[in-house]
Amino acid sequence: MSEGKTRRPKAETPKGFRDYFGAEVTERKAMLDAIAGVYHRYGFDALETSAVETVEALGKFLPDVDRPNEGVFAWQDEDEAWMALRYDLTAPLARVAAQYRNDLPAPYRRYAMGPVWRNEKPGPGRFRQFYQCDADTVGAASVAADAEICAMLSDALEVVGIPRGDYVVKVNNRKVLNGVMEVAGLAGDDKAAERGIVLRAIDKIDRLGEAGVRALLGEGRKDESGDFTKGAGLGPGQAEVVMGFVSAKRESGAATVARLRELVGGSVLGAEGVDELETIASLLGAQGYGPDRIVIDPGVVRGLGYYTGPVFEAELTFEILDEKGRKRQFGSVAGGGRYDDLVKRFTGQAVPATGVSIGVDRLLAALRAKGRVAADSAGPVVVTVMDRDRMADYMAMVGDLRQAGIRAEVYLGNPKNFGNQLKYADKRASPVAVIQGSDEAARGVVVLKDLVLGAKIAASATLEEWKDRPAQIEVARKDLVSAVRKMLAQ
Amino acid sequence: MSEGKTRRPKAETPKGFRDYFGAEVTERKAMLDAIAGVYHRYGFDALETSAVETVEALGKFLPDVDRPNEGVFAWQDEDEAWMALRYDLTAPLARVAAQYRNDLPAPYRRYAMGPVWRNEKPGPGRFRQFYQCDADTVGAASVAADAEICAMLSDALEVVGIPRGDYVVKVNNRKVLNGVMEVAGLAGDDKAAERGIVLRAIDKIDRLGEAGVRALLGEGRKDESGDFTKGAGLGPGQAEVVMGFVSAKRESGAATVARLRELVGGSVLGAEGVDELETIASLLGAQGYGPDRIVIDPGVVRGLGYYTGPVFEAELTFEILDEKGRKRQFGSVAGGGRYDDLVKRFTGQAVPATGVSIGVDRLLAALRAKGRVAADSAGPVVVTVMDRDRMADYMAMVGDLRQAGIRAEVYLGNPKNFGNQLKYADKRASPVAVIQGSDEAARGVVVLKDLVLGAKIAASATLEEWKDRPAQIEVARKDLVSAVRKMLAQ
Repeated sequence: MSEGKTRRPKAETPKGFRDYFGAEVTERKAMLDAIAGVYHRYGFDALETSAVETVEALGKFLPDVDRPNEGVFAWQDEDEAWMALRYDLTAPLARVAAQYRNDLPAPYRRYAMGPVWRNEKPGPGRFRQFYQCDADTVGAASVAADAEICAMLSDALEVVGIPRGDYVVKVNNRKVLNGVMEVAGLAGDDKAAERGIVLRAIDKIDRLGEAGVRALLGEGRKDESGDFTKGAGLGPGQAEVVMGFVSAKRESGAATVARLRELVGGSVLGAEGVDELETIASLLGAQGYGPDRIVIDPGVVRGLGYYTGPVFEAELTFEILDEKGRKRQFGSVAGGGRYDDLVKRFTGQAVPATGVSIGVDRLLAALRAKGRVAADSAGPVVVTVMDRDRMADYMAMVGDLRQAGIRAEVYLGNPKNFGNQLKYADKRASPVAVIQGSDEAARGVVVLKDLVLGAKIAASATLEEWKDRPAQIEVARKDLVSAVRKMLAQ
Repeated sequence: MSEGKTRRPKAETPKGFRDYFGAEVTERKAMLDAIAGVYHRYGFDALETSAVETVEALGKFLPDVDRPNEGVFAWQDEDEAWMALRYDLTAPLARVAAQYRNDLPAPYRRYAMGPVWRNEKPGPGRFRQFYQCDADTVGAASVAADAEICAMLSDALEVVGIPRGDYVVKVNNRKVLNGVMEVAGLAGDDKAAERGIVLRAIDKIDRLGEAGVRALLGEGRKDESGDFTKGAGLGPGQAEVVMGFVSAKRESGAATVARLRELVGGSVLGAEGVDELETIASLLGAQGYGPDRIVIDPGVVRGLGYYTGPVFEAELTFEILDEKGRKRQFGSVAGGGRYDDLVKRFTGQAVPATGVSIGVDRLLAALRAKGRVAADSAGPVVVTVMDRDRMADYMAMVGDLRQAGIRAEVYLGNPKNFGNQLKYADKRASPVAVIQGSDEAARGVVVLKDLVLGAKIAASATLEEWKDRPAQIEVARKDLVSAVRKMLAQ
């Protein structure tokens, strides 16, 4: 293009962002609607905060720098104040809980669903805008609130189409782990670095196995490439205590609790954590949520810097094939736990809170893998245009179909080439094409083409099996709606 | 606060933004869901583009400035490229139509619903983030596409709860107006300024009346404050042609069309516009959309710089009281029309397009004014906690209610003060409180408190009218669900 001409803008989605078309939108929406129905029944209220927050409220501003930290999309407003797009739904909840603390019910149960934005390097399957779906209870110190979240998570998974037996909600408690740390001699501020290494090691057990974790608890571990990761430097006795925790899960919840009680020994905090787990299990049991749905599992170690009490994670237990064709469990689709310091940033007062976040894209992928997506993504009936002067007739047909609740379109492109109209119907995944030339119009009939059956016949070696079901029928114009309905039902 | 202490962030919504709570979210959602159902039935596909666009694609960048123009929230990405939040849903559609032109069906019918952002001075009821709800057909030159949009808009208004007779979709055509301008001697590039003044004058007829518009068509107009607005300087004959257009509406569509045909005289473009209006009316008539729903109205003059053919506007015709207590018509809640140059910016090729945008907040306000909001915003049944050691019993009750599909909560705050629990139930707009102390537990019963009735009794001068309906009943624990259901149904 020469310099003199006006440069045309590029038509492209910004790097790291994506667009969602048709069923990609409606399937996600159907899933979130079903989840919202469960949350609503549990008494949670919807909250939709502004997408924009002050950077100050988000906390993505270090006192000694003059620009927001990495991770958010930020700009300065007309008063030079920094604004940013929210990076999650929890930070806005903390702001709202502080801002409206005199007006909101206490405790405040809320759910939120919507996009969040991360200014991070995009990668395969990693986007800079994605959906989150959170439910939190703010202002309830009782672990009954945690138990309720676990029950609700279980209900939410079932309502979107994950059958009982194909998922498990695992519950653990940060206090138990801290108690175990005490017993292992890892309490106190001066041991924070070791505790961090221990936490990260436990978190890797699925990938590294017991031997790998033991190496990281001790001197360190050399991986396959020869790289060395420094360990926590625990002695054999200390490592034994930690490994005992990781493998404390027993056949029954009661047995797991008993084993954890042994492990936390004289730690007051640890004993409190075990009591809480026991209470959660008994509250859930009273509502009929047994270990077929929710289990105590000390193997769950997630986001531990953040959580202060119970933590939970929902895992899908059915197998899928990974990118290399190997069978593996689908894995985690949701997680959460108790946290206490978020509102304190604003008000100085600690407010107990607990919540869960469902991984929208992962759960949707699981539903697709199981063929469980619920939205009505069927293509429309396409009324073709044989005679452009009779557009009013075709629009009357499409009007009749729509009135009857049938998704339908009239072809609005240039009708000259009839082949293009059938190609269009194909692209629209249309189940039925309606055709009426002047001959059919004179006789008061329309032709219905069963495009689903047509595609099957085209893909099939023999016509034999379809011979009783014609791919094309002629019906009276007045029977259009009933005949289309019958064809759609086949 | 002293300099030495860590400064606490302010908990506040950024200026010009707002948060939406509970029913504010679900009522809007229910309305948009109902509209989406209509759009889907018409064969429109959902599209959800990224909230972020390159400023280049949005076109909010003048070639000779180094920052995006006013009106958008913008920032530079890691490659120094300017990004911005979308300010409407049409610019992203144009980008998508160009970017995916080989993959999308042609014509492409799409709807989009979601927030947009405007970097403008906020004011009362004017926010920097608000919802738009658009439906457009890209790639259809036929006015059948415009007629379809009008029919769909009519259906959408009825499905959300605006009864027939309480709204009208008005249709006009930009080509007719241009034809009238030709007749009035206002064609040609050198008359652009005059045409602009004429357009703005016509647009003000509701406010200024015929005399005010005539003044603006002539020398100019002095308003009540004494400010003078320069007019278009038309002679009396020219002004007569323009005023004839504005008042061309007749009793029937056919009569209006006949009057318009007189007015456009020998203008080819004008005659084409009148033909298009006639075609639209006949296509709509064939589908049963008569003048009780959709009318030809030359008084509709909207966003005229943008539109190239048919334009439409939906007005609600019922009266509301304005802020000064005066009766006035509710007015416009949706509008749109045909535009052809948006995709051309990207590809160089003109692509015909037509669409409509529903004013989400205005339509929602209309539904609220008519008491027609649909969402289930009832508060939950609240199970109170009389004895904190029996939390499992209370959770079992709430579990039973939820299993039966009844929205219910157990009180999760500190149960010590029972009065606080009833205050909580009140704040939650709870219809029923469930109470079970140790005495009731021993007898296997629960007490149900009808809070709706209780509030009525409290507000009433006499208990007489309520005497047959006790505000509090005792039922067997096993009958909890059925008794609550009965109380909710009253």
